[in-house]
Amino acid sequence: MLAEPHFKRRPGIWKMLMAAVCVALLSGLQAQDLPGQVSIILLGATGDLARKYLWQGLFHLYLEEVGKGHHFRFHGTALTSTEQGQEVIAKVLESLSCPRDMAPGHCAELKAQFQQLSEYRRLKTPEDYLALSKDIEAQVEHEGLRETGRIFYLSVPPFAYVDIARNINSSCRPGPGAWLRVVLEKPFGHDLHSAQQLAAELGSFFREEEMYRVDHYLGKQVVAQILPFRDQNRAALDGLWNRHHVERVEVVMKETLDAEGRTSFYEEYGVIRDVLQNHLTEVLTLVAMELPVNISSPEAVLQHKLQAFPALRGLQRHSAVLGQYQAYSGQVRRELQKPDSFHSLTPTFAGILVHIDNLRWEGVPFILMSGKVLDERVSYVRILFKNQAFCVQSEKHWVAAQSRCLPRQIIFHIGHGELGSPAVLVSRNLFRPALPSAGWKEVEGRPGLRLFGLPLSDYYAYSPVREQDAYSVLISHIFHCRKDSFVTTENLLASWAFWTPLLDSLAHEVPRLYPGGAENGQLLDFELSSGHLSFSQPLPEQLMPGLDSAPLPSDFQVLRAKYRESPLISAWPEELIARLAGDIEAAAVRAVRRFGEFHLALSGGSSPVALFQQLATGHYSFPWAHTHLWLVDERCVPLWDPESNFQGLQTHLLQHVRVPHYNVHPMPVHRRQRLCAEEDQGTQAYAEEISALVTNSSFDLVLLGMGADGHTASLFPQSPTGLDGEQLVVLTTSPSSPHRRMSLSLPLINRAQKVAVLVMGRMKREIAMLVSRVGHEPKKWPISGVLPDSGQLVWYMDYDAFLG
Amino acid sequence: MLAEPHFKRRPGIWKMLMAAVCVALLSGLQAQDLPGQVSIILLGATGDLARKYLWQGLFHLYLEEVGKGHHFRFHGTALTSTEQGQEVIAKVLESLSCPRDMAPGHCAELKAQFQQLSEYRRLKTPEDYLALSKDIEAQVEHEGLRETGRIFYLSVPPFAYVDIARNINSSCRPGPGAWLRVVLEKPFGHDLHSAQQLAAELGSFFREEEMYRVDHYLGKQVVAQILPFRDQNRAALDGLWNRHHVERVEVVMKETLDAEGRTSFYEEYGVIRDVLQNHLTEVLTLVAMELPVNISSPEAVLQHKLQAFPALRGLQRHSAVLGQYQAYSGQVRRELQKPDSFHSLTPTFAGILVHIDNLRWEGVPFILMSGKVLDERVSYVRILFKNQAFCVQSEKHWVAAQSRCLPRQIIFHIGHGELGSPAVLVSRNLFRPALPSAGWKEVEGRPGLRLFGLPLSDYYAYSPVREQDAYSVLISHIFHCRKDSFVTTENLLASWAFWTPLLDSLAHEVPRLYPGGAENGQLLDFELSSGHLSFSQPLPEQLMPGLDSAPLPSDFQVLRAKYRESPLISAWPEELIARLAGDIEAAAVRAVRRFGEFHLALSGGSSPVALFQQLATGHYSFPWAHTHLWLVDERCVPLWDPESNFQGLQTHLLQHVRVPHYNVHPMPVHRRQRLCAEEDQGTQAYAEEISALVTNSSFDLVLLGMGADGHTASLFPQSPTGLDGEQLVVLTTSPSSPHRRMSLSLPLINRAQKVAVLVMGRMKREIAMLVSRVGHEPKKWPISGVLPDSGQLVWYMDYDAFLG
Repeated sequence: MLAEPHFKRRPGIWKMLMAAVCVALLSGLQAQDLPGQVSIILLGATGDLARKYLWQGLFHLYLEEVGKGHHFRFHGTALTSTEQGQEVIAKVLESLSCPRDMAPGHCAELKAQFQQLSEYRRLKTPEDYLALSKDIEAQVEHEGLRETGRIFYLSVPPFAYVDIARNINSSCRPGPGAWLRVVLEKPFGHDLHSAQQLAAELGSFFREEEMYRVDHYLGKQVVAQILPFRDQNRAALDGLWNRHHVERVEVVMKETLDAEGRTSFYEEYGVIRDVLQNHLTEVLTLVAMELPVNISSPEAVLQHKLQAFPALRGLQRHSAVLGQYQAYSGQVRRELQKPDSFHSLTPTFAGILVHIDNLRWEGVPFILMSGKVLDERVSYVRILFKNQAFCVQSEKHWVAAQSRCLPRQIIFHIGHGELGSPAVLVSRNLFRPALPSAGWKEVEGRPGLRLFGLPLSDYYAYSPVREQDAYSVLISHIFHCRKDSFVTTENLLASWAFWTPLLDSLAHEVPRLYPGGAENGQLLDFELSSGHLSFSQPLPEQLMPGLDSAPLPSDFQVLRAKYRESPLISAWPEELIARLAGDIEAAAVRAVRRFGEFHLALSGGSSPVALFQQLATGHYSFPWAHTHLWLVDERCVPLWDPESNFQGLQTHLLQHVRVPHYNVHPMPVHRRQRLCAEEDQGTQAYAEEISALVTNSSFDLVLLGMGADGHTASLFPQSPTGLDGEQLVVLTTSPSSPHRRMSLSLPLINRAQKVAVLVMGRMKREIAMLVSRVGHEPKKWPISGVLPDSGQLVWYMDYDAFLG
Repeated sequence: MLAEPHFKRRPGIWKMLMAAVCVALLSGLQAQDLPGQVSIILLGATGDLARKYLWQGLFHLYLEEVGKGHHFRFHGTALTSTEQGQEVIAKVLESLSCPRDMAPGHCAELKAQFQQLSEYRRLKTPEDYLALSKDIEAQVEHEGLRETGRIFYLSVPPFAYVDIARNINSSCRPGPGAWLRVVLEKPFGHDLHSAQQLAAELGSFFREEEMYRVDHYLGKQVVAQILPFRDQNRAALDGLWNRHHVERVEVVMKETLDAEGRTSFYEEYGVIRDVLQNHLTEVLTLVAMELPVNISSPEAVLQHKLQAFPALRGLQRHSAVLGQYQAYSGQVRRELQKPDSFHSLTPTFAGILVHIDNLRWEGVPFILMSGKVLDERVSYVRILFKNQAFCVQSEKHWVAAQSRCLPRQIIFHIGHGELGSPAVLVSRNLFRPALPSAGWKEVEGRPGLRLFGLPLSDYYAYSPVREQDAYSVLISHIFHCRKDSFVTTENLLASWAFWTPLLDSLAHEVPRLYPGGAENGQLLDFELSSGHLSFSQPLPEQLMPGLDSAPLPSDFQVLRAKYRESPLISAWPEELIARLAGDIEAAAVRAVRRFGEFHLALSGGSSPVALFQQLATGHYSFPWAHTHLWLVDERCVPLWDPESNFQGLQTHLLQHVRVPHYNVHPMPVHRRQRLCAEEDQGTQAYAEEISALVTNSSFDLVLLGMGADGHTASLFPQSPTGLDGEQLVVLTTSPSSPHRRMSLSLPLINRAQKVAVLVMGRMKREIAMLVSRVGHEPKKWPISGVLPDSGQLVWYMDYDAFLG
């Protein structure tokens, strides 16, 4: 049983408050003398969203709750004049509909009541807010009621938030004993910074528990069913919902519509901000999070959801593929009066690969995908399980419901698609799911319909008895304090913190153009490989560069030459790293064959990271079990410090290969809780360890870098230690922080069988030029002192460093 | 480029000899004065195999080689009388056929020549062998030829091998300058021991390079094509042929025939010895081995093949599922005159899960499957690749040859099945394979034919222009010294060493009965889960145990009680381990939440192994990144010694979870190349490490065991150290080897927040009884001194230990 994790970032006071508030609401009627009234103020009451969904949602709430003794008043507000507004609202109220199963007479009666309780008023100045507040108080008193609370639903553009919030806070808060809830509609910022800013501003007016940020996906019936499904089927899912059984998770929202008429908004946002940062991320966390023991506790759900974020592996440029439908730039030019030469970089399609670095999900790809003008409208989450069965009979004898070799999957079918309705689908060869107690029914058969590789009949499938609009659901949840259906500030900022670095790195990326609809063919299909995404089909023009295009890396061969009278290998970075990794492996294989072990001393820094990754993913025959890893140098920080060279080695190499624990030799920079204290004799200890394990203290291979000042290892110009003398390991001082270092000495390095110096990047051009000309002057340029006594020295330089 | 690995186990002399011999053969005609003759002596020339395949193979060799100037003589021999034998042979020779493309007249001519060169003779006594040898020498001399070599093809039962080998060696070796080759047919032993014995006996008569052990699968054209295919498609396969891309490998041989008429053989062998130990293992190694740089070097191929074995993870009882067709026992009773009560345990069906623990294949399941009386006859190797693509278009728009979302696989279709012929199949959405230069053609389309989930047209497929019988291929390879088509002694013993432990552990296993053919339904389908195999369908009778059947583990609840006045948790082993693992995780989560870290001290031994495995595979939320692992005790052996407690921890836990290197604290039993030397102060160093990192030196959890003598940790009865006093870590002496130990002391253990004592197995029953009654007498029973100062003590005992 999982214990409730601790809610770290904020003190838990608001949760207690919230719980208290909700108890007050629900038991209010009994606990007090007077019957309570809730006032609901809909701001932007004449706007699109309000007319289409929100009034209907309020009416729905009224129908549900009025019979339970609750009193309501509804105030539609906007900036338009009272007369105009009243006219619009009257029309909207007239068009409201009751559930199909309600008798028409009863419906008409309730609708008339609702219309009675609803009014339109202009809400613009602080005085307007004050007047509204007074009116509510007067009306409540007049009717012999007690005010329970006020809901402000802000269906307004985000730039209006802060003013409105200030007015509500200063002039329209309900009196003591009554609660305030403010409902906010996205967008909630444009990136982490703006989201933080907005959150801070709103936070100066409202307490966290007063704010309800809407993500309407959380009101969709199937999305809301994800946690209950996981909860009701705990027994079956306990063993399945993890990396050992899940092959991949797809979170998909495909649209057929384009952005026409909305380009002024869309140009600012694009598909990632519009859909992925919010809707798809919410769904992702519901699938990936640890399931709380009690899913009916909003606090527990919110806590667990929030805790899913720290495990998300950071996104990088190559975590994404981007597309844009061909007509988009033209639409932007027309709508935003741009010149003919304008081409938008805003993506209307994105595929994103998310990895979750925890024991449950490590290695399972979560694919998020959304786009406009695709071939169909559909949204779903698909959990595809690994095929771990072997079916002995020939395929033609397989029986779908029994054969474990056919696809096994769970699909939360959020809506649309060929199925046409929300549903939860579970392959019959997986398990029979527990049906929710009420409100859901089994989906009727539809011969010929295939979904995700299987006929519909191969699934246990259930769908809502009555489809409900997401806004109706959410309005009811606001009333019932179901905070877990809304986005908390922490959750919002965690999501932006996750997405913002990717958005930044993609800012100047050119999306792939696609024609739209079925014509897209395979053009947008993409592939996963070693943590990266790329389109499956290369673009034709990428295959045939024009005559005057820049040379491609493959146009060059690896160059062999001499540098400081030693062999030089030069190439583009990728080839260079591949070559160096290959050479290290060859040296390792040779050493292990001859001596049974291979002693490799590695430098820190950024260039070796690419090497570590190459070694970790491309070299299956590397004799890791017989390899000893040593450090060339180390910063005097604890080994777990992100600045520690060892930490880089651990993250990029050790986690991915199997080097026995006792073959890994971090530098003892941290002894007795102190860093590089002379009296702790770390350098002597390391020297002794080397002497004990490495024959003649001669490493098989030492990998060095070269600094722009000519330093190597942590041996800096003019260093009083390490450049000569008897000492094998020394403490040195770096000109840059952290200053204190431990390093192998030049004499020890020069005892190695082979020394490889890796030099990469344009920043090294100058020193590479200089060092090519100087003699043996280690005091001035320590790198010039690298000259193995009897071993071999090889320089590995990329073209940027070597050719500038 | 991979360097050639070193061929470790045997000196390379035979390889040099072999190479020399083969050069002599091929260039023989030019290098010597006289034309050379090869004599081929077929023993068992009147037997089934000889009549069906071997004579035809010899004729085929003759047709191939005679035009190249080679001279041949063929001696069919057996134990039957000359007259009878001659009659049989004459019939066989008459029925020989030429390739279809040879003109009938030419065929008749060559057949007559072959008949001329072939004779039958009885070969029984040493004199017979001597006479044969003399006759060959006389004939060669008479015809003015030079003897090049002799091939003895032993198509005889294995019990006859040794006598024949002795006779050949003593009386029938060719003279100096001519070579000897002895061809052996399986079975080559019944298990590792018998195979070693047979190998030793044969080794006393023949040199390794003189022996050609036949596995006719190696002569099958598609099997022989595996390495050339890998070689010719290196560029495409380099990135694919590994754990990152391969989902699974299936090596399958399905038969429809039963064992009727052969049960006397089959009862002794069963499907694993009959098919898996040899044919399927050979195929497995060809797929899994590292590809030598030069695949036309038989030595390199054999070396690389042999090196595939050490990486095979040992098979265990649960690596296999076994079946037996229902009619089998009846057939055995009839043929072997067994009583009606006889039921055979011999499996006629087996599914085996093989894992290969190297960086290329780690985690990829290799499934070996073979059985008699199945629904179809087919054999193949299937390499199924992972789906790493996401296809954006709706499924109905997928185009097979382009969509990366449809299955991607390579199938070496060895024979039969619906395709009906040998072929190599590569999914068109994978890559276009290089066709071998000659002898292979593209397979013609067969509308409607589906193979492995795809229509035939979705594959690039090629098959041999001319199907050749495996024996014809092998006989040609014997002549051409292609030793890589045969099984070397080392390879044979490596395979038996791999299979024998499984065979031993399965000896008393009852196979699942199956009706046979299509009626098997899903009865034999099996599943992989965490390294184990099990049938997908439970047997109905297992679901409903009879009234008088033994109680099942699930019939019992976990029992809670008191033991020595502390809480006792008792259950069957599996539940007990699950419970303990759960409790440890809960403690870890609590500690990390409160203090940011969790200090866990673990004991060695066998009981914790199950716990480690449970923790590694079942606990996804365990906060490993914040857990420190300490050792309760250690044997004074190097950490890499199999007897080291740390080694067990590393193998069963550390390799599977991500504990940072610096959070792992092995006991320093091995310092300055010495083991537990007092002067190296290992105990002080460990105590200091504990004091520095563990608050108050109070571990969050200490896991102990209890020995049958009442010892715990490495604190043994009457120990002069560790039972009391100030020392935190001590050196002790064990009554059993290795005697020298390092251990936490009782006082240190008793400072822990929680101490869990795990006691399992019937062997502990007595001491558990005893200790339940004794007081605090640590000198006599160290376990009785475990009594945390302020922490909690919990006993975890399985029913065997607790209830006996």
